Amino acid sequence: MTTLRVRFAETDQMGVAHHAAYVVWLEAARVEWMRERGLSYRDLETSGISMAVSRIDVQYRAAAYFDDSLTIHTTLERLKSRYACFRYRIEGPDGRLVATAVSEHIATDRDGRAVRVPSAWRDALAEHVTPTSD
Amino acid sequence: MTTLRVRFAETDQMGVAHHAAYVVWLEAARVEWMRERGLSYRDLETSGISMAVSRIDVQYRAAAYFDDSLTIHTTLERLKSRYACFRYRIEGPDGRLVATAVSEHIATDRDGRAVRVPSAWRDALAEHVTPTSD
Amino acid sequence: MTTLRVRFAETDQMGVAHHAAYVVWLEAARVEWMRERGLSYRDLETSGISMAVSRIDVQYRAAAYFDDSLTIHTTLERLKSRYACFRYRIEGPDGRLVATAVSEHIATDRDGRAVRVPSAWRDALAEHVTPTSD
Amino acid sequence: MTTLRVRFAETDQMGVAHHAAYVVWLEAARVEWMRERGLSYRDLETSGISMAVSRIDVQYRAAAYFDDSLTIHTTLERLKSRYACFRYRIEGPDGRLVATAVSEHIATDRDGRAVRVPSAWRDALAEHVTPTSD
Repeated sequence: MTTLRVRFAETDQMGVAHHAAYVVWLEAARVEWMRERGLSYRDLETSGISMAVSRIDVQYRAAAYFDDSLTIHTTLERLKSRYACFRYRIEGPDGRLVATAVSEHIATDRDGRAVRVPSAWRDALAEHVTPTSD
Repeated sequence: MTTLRVRFAETDQMGVAHHAAYVVWLEAARVEWMRERGLSYRDLETSGISMAVSRIDVQYRAAAYFDDSLTIHTTLERLKSRYACFRYRIEGPDGRLVATAVSEHIATDRDGRAVRVPSAWRDALAEHVTPTSD
Repeated sequence: MTTLRVRFAETDQMGVAHHAAYVVWLEAARVEWMRERGLSYRDLETSGISMAVSRIDVQYRAAAYFDDSLTIHTTLERLKSRYACFRYRIEGPDGRLVATAVSEHIATDRDGRAVRVPSAWRDALAEHVTPTSD
Repeated sequence: MTTLRVRFAETDQMGVAHHAAYVVWLEAARVEWMRERGLSYRDLETSGISMAVSRIDVQYRAAAYFDDSLTIHTTLERLKSRYACFRYRIEGPDGRLVATAVSEHIATDRDGRAVRVPSAWRDALAEHVTPTSD
């Protein structure tokens, strides 16, 4: 579970958090999700492997406002040898649903070629796969 | 059709354009699409109506690089009294497919309430609806 | 004192945090500095008053990296009836100096006109002015 | 001379372009300035040399608004073996002065160490140095 505050720079002239900011938050939530499970995405990157984003699907349900403290619930929904799929639920300060989202990832090397997720990572991630029904 | 160059600030340490930048490009392409059809999104905003984003779905097909000149093809796929759906195709400098995307929108007033798209806009937009099959 | 982690989206293809991200961090640090002193910048904004940025001067001393936990020390250096100047020091995880910066602000109303900082805010801010010598 | 339009994502809840966006625009203007003089910053980066930003100083003079077409005038003010300083003037659609800025740069290699600007680049840049008096 990640919490973050909506930054002023993330608002737009509609007076709400701009929809592209959510995509950045999902990434921050994903990195925290890994850290909480003993996995350093920074170390994975340093080793030359990235979890490149192949798809982002965000459904915006309610506005988020400057200085709101948001909570992001992250779930690893599916895992294959070269692929992972995360699901997210962003909640506002009062628990209201702000957005749901899915991100899909392909493990890639420094040249952008699809590779297998390193086995240590795959084993560690496999413990946390939680298929969802919705 | 919109063309834009990938900015240095839009790259990340993988050496490619960050996936959140695409969401900003789609918005820029949408505004240009309207301008080319005689519609000023700025004027719509000034009148108190926004086309709030209710969903973004982006499929990343190939990396985009710093300084690449990208072309974005925008299509208005569906239009209802309070709703619009756009489809996008982002192509790289050599015509390679970089990404496809869909954005869904709800017309809202300054308080974020769903409202009808103003009739002048709706009539103008209706001329350009192009359902796609994929 | 504010701490934040460098987000992946904030890196660029040089493999470091992009210099524009620092400007966003300074703003986040300023808002936290206010909160720690019982001042809600959100409330000030809601009341129709902004502390518009009239100048930003950032000196970059060392790179910041993805996932680095940075500490930002904020000081209110000068305060006038319509003006405030903040000074910042950004430190890396090992205490190394990452950047120093100054931001200048003009209090403005919703039409962008310079106005006096509301007296309650001015009194509260005045207690925290700390001129620096460098 | 670079022209660009203020993107919706670049606005904030004050209804103007956010001050951090200017820093990104300066970078885009700098890259275009080089291109107009036959210099590809992309090629320089590919060769392993970056013009890392060591300082940014922006003075905000008037607000820029969504969809404004801005013009950025760029000048190379100083050049040394490992250092360059650019000066900028951002003008609004009606020619009004939006901002002035200075950026300072250190040539660095892939490890972030200061290096000499490659001689071909230095010679090419040297032809365009224009000291300013203000």
